[in-house]
Amino acid sequence: MTRVLVVGTGLIGTSIALALRGGGVDVRLDDIDTGRVGEAAERGAGTPYAADDPPAGHAVLAVPPTAVAPVLRRVQEQRLAETASDVASVKVAPLAAAAALGCDLAAFVGGHPIAGREQSGPGAASGDLFVGRTWVLTPTVETSAAARAAADDVVRRCGGVPLVLDPAFHDTVVALTSHAPQLIASALAALLVGADPDTLRLVGSGLRDTTRLAGSDPALWTEIALANATPLADVLDRLAASLADVTAALRAGNDVAVRELLDRGNTGRAPLTGGRVEPGVA
Amino acid sequence: MTRVLVVGTGLIGTSIALALRGGGVDVRLDDIDTGRVGEAAERGAGTPYAADDPPAGHAVLAVPPTAVAPVLRRVQEQRLAETASDVASVKVAPLAAAAALGCDLAAFVGGHPIAGREQSGPGAASGDLFVGRTWVLTPTVETSAAARAAADDVVRRCGGVPLVLDPAFHDTVVALTSHAPQLIASALAALLVGADPDTLRLVGSGLRDTTRLAGSDPALWTEIALANATPLADVLDRLAASLADVTAALRAGNDVAVRELLDRGNTGRAPLTGGRVEPGVA
Repeated sequence: MTRVLVVGTGLIGTSIALALRGGGVDVRLDDIDTGRVGEAAERGAGTPYAADDPPAGHAVLAVPPTAVAPVLRRVQEQRLAETASDVASVKVAPLAAAAALGCDLAAFVGGHPIAGREQSGPGAASGDLFVGRTWVLTPTVETSAAARAAADDVVRRCGGVPLVLDPAFHDTVVALTSHAPQLIASALAALLVGADPDTLRLVGSGLRDTTRLAGSDPALWTEIALANATPLADVLDRLAASLADVTAALRAGNDVAVRELLDRGNTGRAPLTGGRVEPGVA
Repeated sequence: MTRVLVVGTGLIGTSIALALRGGGVDVRLDDIDTGRVGEAAERGAGTPYAADDPPAGHAVLAVPPTAVAPVLRRVQEQRLAETASDVASVKVAPLAAAAALGCDLAAFVGGHPIAGREQSGPGAASGDLFVGRTWVLTPTVETSAAARAAADDVVRRCGGVPLVLDPAFHDTVVALTSHAPQLIASALAALLVGADPDTLRLVGSGLRDTTRLAGSDPALWTEIALANATPLADVLDRLAASLADVTAALRAGNDVAVRELLDRGNTGRAPLTGGRVEPGVA
């Protein structure tokens, strides 16, 4: 891999570009926001894309989910790169959209690095953002060996750990591990709208952590949630049933049912701490 | 205040004892677990209580919510202290239980320091745990000036910031700020029970933070939740309604309603960060 085109120079795109540059790859940068391209280039992430650039070996589409298909279409029509991959946190909907736009799906493989930062934009990017982190790849039966090898090469050059999953399975998993937590955090934080000062004085680290995700970008997360609507709604239904049960138990004074939920919470949480006991702080 | 009896030498009781000792108060320590008393005494938190100790000026009951009333009853029957306060995270139920047991409510004032640590027990205690932290006091019309002044003195000697609230208002607030987040974190983490290894590899810091409270002690939290059952159930009902709305919106492809919830989450979260923009990390 000698030349990679990175489309979308936000946090993720610029971080990938920085990692590839560190490995000597010739990185070209493109973004609908030319200011961001300039910022990424200044940070040493590569060279702004120019119309007379020769085709890249691979294009990384680091754009929001609904932009993946149209950007892929443009990359393929203009022959900007031989193969392409994306980084969106949903995989089925962009693939379906790409098929609907008539894209060459053989030359594309879905990707999703499980990494991020609290800051966004090229200024927050880091070439080591993906080191040791899981990076999902979602090839299908249509995906060419060349596209798959190129995407895998990008992951490894970034220090990521590739994990190959079926696109639909990926979406079901992230509905639980990422998208439902986002909406729950938002729904909980929304209850604080208009809270009086005394209420805010009683907020401890527990609520602070539980609602941290509520600070996320509403536009981006609306797009993600709608792009993964059915798996996400299924998880929220399961959660609602569990909350309805515990609410009924509270009203009935049923301590056994309340205790059972708290025990299951302990059990479900344990693998996230490597089994370490880590009681929460109210 | 020259002598204080601390009943319950866990994290909170021992931390209070350490803070009072730092201010030169003669602290006596009591616990149904004598090993914990010894551990707290070794840490310099005071002297183990002895049956022939003269009465203390004030007793701090640092015991679980359902133990407050019986322990208060014992302290008053045995004349172990002139006044008493507690630290439980619910205030109405212990007060009602104390009234039912025939306690002298004039000599008691409810208290709740908004502080904690991820570790529990006397070994995790710290004399500066409460510095700058809100410490709710819930005097009623029955509370004597002496009890109120003694509890206020304890708060200030610990470096806490007293906040006087009605007991029922306190319970309504903590149902939202503390108890509902606990059950939501547990319900979300419970969905991970039996998760396959690939699912766990897709867990990022978002889910980790959102479920941190799920590591809490199930026995203690069952007790707290049941002791504040109605206000807590009311908050969970509001949350369930919000989640039902967004789930319906997702299934209908209604991006406006999804966006509205995420926007309200932003708004509700903002005061918790001092208005600082702090997007979540997936």
